[in-house]
Amino acid sequence: MTETHDDQKHEGAVTALDLGIAEPLSERTQAYFAKCVEKLGLVPNVLLAYAFDEKKLDAFSTFYNELMLADSELSKLDREIIAVVVSAINHCHYCLTAHGAAVRQLSGDPAFAETIAQNWRAAGLDEKRSAMLDFVTKLTERPDTIVEADRQRLRDAGFSNRAIFDIASVAAFFAMSNRVASATDMKPNAAYHGMAR
Amino acid sequence: MTETHDDQKHEGAVTALDLGIAEPLSERTQAYFAKCVEKLGLVPNVLLAYAFDEKKLDAFSTFYNELMLADSELSKLDREIIAVVVSAINHCHYCLTAHGAAVRQLSGDPAFAETIAQNWRAAGLDEKRSAMLDFVTKLTERPDTIVEADRQRLRDAGFSNRAIFDIASVAAFFAMSNRVASATDMKPNAAYHGMAR
Amino acid sequence: MTETHDDQKHEGAVTALDLGIAEPLSERTQAYFAKCVEKLGLVPNVLLAYAFDEKKLDAFSTFYNELMLADSELSKLDREIIAVVVSAINHCHYCLTAHGAAVRQLSGDPAFAETIAQNWRAAGLDEKRSAMLDFVTKLTERPDTIVEADRQRLRDAGFSNRAIFDIASVAAFFAMSNRVASATDMKPNAAYHGMAR
Amino acid sequence: MTETHDDQKHEGAVTALDLGIAEPLSERTQAYFAKCVEKLGLVPNVLLAYAFDEKKLDAFSTFYNELMLADSELSKLDREIIAVVVSAINHCHYCLTAHGAAVRQLSGDPAFAETIAQNWRAAGLDEKRSAMLDFVTKLTERPDTIVEADRQRLRDAGFSNRAIFDIASVAAFFAMSNRVASATDMKPNAAYHGMAR
Amino acid sequence: MTETHDDQKHEGAVTALDLGIAEPLSERTQAYFAKCVEKLGLVPNVLLAYAFDEKKLDAFSTFYNELMLADSELSKLDREIIAVVVSAINHCHYCLTAHGAAVRQLSGDPAFAETIAQNWRAAGLDEKRSAMLDFVTKLTERPDTIVEADRQRLRDAGFSNRAIFDIASVAAFFAMSNRVASATDMKPNAAYHGMAR
Amino acid sequence: MTETHDDQKHEGAVTALDLGIAEPLSERTQAYFAKCVEKLGLVPNVLLAYAFDEKKLDAFSTFYNELMLADSELSKLDREIIAVVVSAINHCHYCLTAHGAAVRQLSGDPAFAETIAQNWRAAGLDEKRSAMLDFVTKLTERPDTIVEADRQRLRDAGFSNRAIFDIASVAAFFAMSNRVASATDMKPNAAYHGMAR
Repeated sequence: MTETHDDQKHEGAVTALDLGIAEPLSERTQAYFAKCVEKLGLVPNVLLAYAFDEKKLDAFSTFYNELMLADSELSKLDREIIAVVVSAINHCHYCLTAHGAAVRQLSGDPAFAETIAQNWRAAGLDEKRSAMLDFVTKLTERPDTIVEADRQRLRDAGFSNRAIFDIASVAAFFAMSNRVASATDMKPNAAYHGMAR
Repeated sequence: MTETHDDQKHEGAVTALDLGIAEPLSERTQAYFAKCVEKLGLVPNVLLAYAFDEKKLDAFSTFYNELMLADSELSKLDREIIAVVVSAINHCHYCLTAHGAAVRQLSGDPAFAETIAQNWRAAGLDEKRSAMLDFVTKLTERPDTIVEADRQRLRDAGFSNRAIFDIASVAAFFAMSNRVASATDMKPNAAYHGMAR
Repeated sequence: MTETHDDQKHEGAVTALDLGIAEPLSERTQAYFAKCVEKLGLVPNVLLAYAFDEKKLDAFSTFYNELMLADSELSKLDREIIAVVVSAINHCHYCLTAHGAAVRQLSGDPAFAETIAQNWRAAGLDEKRSAMLDFVTKLTERPDTIVEADRQRLRDAGFSNRAIFDIASVAAFFAMSNRVASATDMKPNAAYHGMAR
Repeated sequence: MTETHDDQKHEGAVTALDLGIAEPLSERTQAYFAKCVEKLGLVPNVLLAYAFDEKKLDAFSTFYNELMLADSELSKLDREIIAVVVSAINHCHYCLTAHGAAVRQLSGDPAFAETIAQNWRAAGLDEKRSAMLDFVTKLTERPDTIVEADRQRLRDAGFSNRAIFDIASVAAFFAMSNRVASATDMKPNAAYHGMAR
Repeated sequence: MTETHDDQKHEGAVTALDLGIAEPLSERTQAYFAKCVEKLGLVPNVLLAYAFDEKKLDAFSTFYNELMLADSELSKLDREIIAVVVSAINHCHYCLTAHGAAVRQLSGDPAFAETIAQNWRAAGLDEKRSAMLDFVTKLTERPDTIVEADRQRLRDAGFSNRAIFDIASVAAFFAMSNRVASATDMKPNAAYHGMAR
Repeated sequence: MTETHDDQKHEGAVTALDLGIAEPLSERTQAYFAKCVEKLGLVPNVLLAYAFDEKKLDAFSTFYNELMLADSELSKLDREIIAVVVSAINHCHYCLTAHGAAVRQLSGDPAFAETIAQNWRAAGLDEKRSAMLDFVTKLTERPDTIVEADRQRLRDAGFSNRAIFDIASVAAFFAMSNRVASATDMKPNAAYHGMAR
């Protein structure tokens, strides 16, 4: 595994801030990165971007995994779709690349994934997903204007309050992640581009 | 301590989603809440908002504490100022209340804290903080337009790359937290209002 | 009374333009300032900002008083709430400070006043006030898009045409006042901060 | 003179709120309206819009006249140009009609007046006026972002602090007046259209 | 006819790019320009702006004529109204001047034409035209947000799918034409100003 | 060739307006479509969208070809990059799909093409292309604010006035084309997705 991030290091820094990687990496982090390589074939650069400080890396990855991988009424695909929709509004290179790959993989439909990244309104979604993404769009563009009627529209479309929390949490997470990536000029792993095309 | 969140529960749900609190709370969470009461006199409602699922609560609070309390070239006050500036742009009731109190406390200057929440440009800040908040404002309003020149302006103002990462991380975190709060109509603890006036 | 504005003068200019105060002040203006001190404990800096020319000061204060203090279906509190909502959208330091104090005083509820300054949608307002502030928000953000349906929604919420005129006039006044304050970097009197907390 | 506003009344209400005119009009107001007819050939509908309450009418017209007609380093034409530039951004039918006529009259150049109403940047203005209108545009679109550097650019272009106050006051006044007109659907006098073509 | 564009050339370049006119002009173009002079009394400067390359001129004018002059359920007046509404949003000096003249001519109502250029919502239009211009406004300001419901509202207002295509095509054309004119600082023929007043 | 568009017809209409195709198609159009199939392997759906009226189709395709394929200081790749940058701002599904394929093809670099569609600022472009795309972005977002200084920056970066015309023309064309596509829900040919990956 260390070869992997070493290789990536040789390609240059993962962000314009070039903060490097804590040395030596703890066994725990090495094991986590090894698991990434095993599952994805790479260590996502966002993890390397936080790896200058293992505490920050741990905190970020635990938070991220709880959000995107834990049980939820929202499927993993729905969560990745939200990630891509938010990232498209914010024009985030890193997140569109990494989560675009995830939508391709989980949907098995690369053209659908590309449409979501372009404009979800053109993807012919059903009422429930359209309601979800209308909420996500409003929350991304004008969070101050969300009112009870917006939550009620989600309930009317079939979402529980617990699911609304998850929709909000995922959309909000990428409001954050997009900004860390844009602020630091975070570079996605080149390998994402070819995945699941 | 449990009296505290019970009391808060009696006042009504902390969000419009009313997801309740995991029962029974683990000893670890009870101890964490007790520490909050000891230090702040309350359990911040944002923690109760995540407490329907202790894993989410843990992930959120660990991430938050690493960001706002760990060592950084940025003082805790600077981090709270960033929190308030982002929350003012997003008009976030919860975060302006809770982090407004923190700026009052850390600065010892309630009028300054209020000015930051109104418009940081009116606060007579020095060049370094103005550069920091110009970056934060751009990152909040138009993250897609950040370019190397923006980072360079921060370096020219005296920030290291590591400090730029922290500025970006804190600003980005509140892009997230504002949206979770607005999406769920999160209510701040009433006690924040009177703190450090 | 003249001590008061002299003191304020000693603290520095009330705007970045530093236009001074007409000398000698007419007896009429002196009497008006004395009345301000008697009622409010201070001469609002906005009056001192116009006091370089007593005709402008007279015209401004007469217009202001007619708007905010004359009889209206709108209570004085409602007019101050509109002032704060507009000023929050425009992030106006002067007006949020001065009229925030007024909302605290008239409502007797400092936490409510702060919520209005943060995001009125989080204040749990009734239908009538929500309709009023939806109109005020639209008029502030996109005046060109107001159509008859917007006025009709106010009538449906129980406002007369005369009250609609007053809502529009107050909201519009602060579109102006916010801009004079921001353009000149007008400083609010320090004493506002502590009032009615 | 009374014929004039009676005639106008016959054509319908001057705003969608149709608040009528105080009866009987005071002699003072009758004299003021007579003077308008003498000078302009009409009573501007904005005055009739306030004439349901003579105190409001007086306050408005005194404030307006002090702003637009009193001595200033800014010529009357410059003040009317600012009025039109602000009104163009806000797409205000009433103000573009009435003040468009004023720019035609004062400049003697109807094509110039039309260009100002379309996009002042296309009017080939000199540096000083361009600086003035850049400030006016920023103040109209994003008043919260005005900083000392913006005022300094005006000083560098040759404006005194006193002139900056007047630029700000006039621009801010039309931020107000545009909103009263849009909120009430104020109709300009038909006669403005043909003036000074 | 060549006198005409020669005269115009003498007045200066039609754009800030000053690309000149192909020499010699083909007989076909000379005939086209002669026809313009016969019908309009001038060669529109937009044609001279493209005349540095006759192929581009031909392509542009054929496309334009097909759009604005060919048979359509939309009257020529409706098409010119759309042109002016789009150009008002984009504050395009050239197009507001040239197509403002066309609305005056086709409507025979100069005050109506001016109102459309100021804010179409103030023009007292019927439901059908209001629906048309609501669609045009949304398409101009936020094309990404158009959904089937927007098209359906046009059908409900009485437009066929074919007419919707024409509404979209004309509005979209001026999104283009406004940008070519603004990018090049295109100057309208002085004669437009006086037409059909 | 006719099989091709027949097949496409069988897949459903190319726009939500479903205007069909003129019957019989002229030999000229049949030949044009055959050439498309020969060169691209398909008839672009945008052509079928105009094919309900061959005159409109001719006018559109002639204008398009003159713009995108004729001689220019701008390479075909640069023109396609502009197309994608404008379409990304407008979130246009059709144009991002079709012109994204063109950027892949002409650059031979699919990851580069994707970056341009996400956020051109992340693509590591040289000064000249960055200047070009800064101009394109401003022209797309706020055409009214373009001034001579913006053109001068392009000249300083090495563009001739003729090249500036072409930059403006291409950017403006996609301001149009994006809006026709969004207004009609135009569907790109499925085959674009797989091209030049």
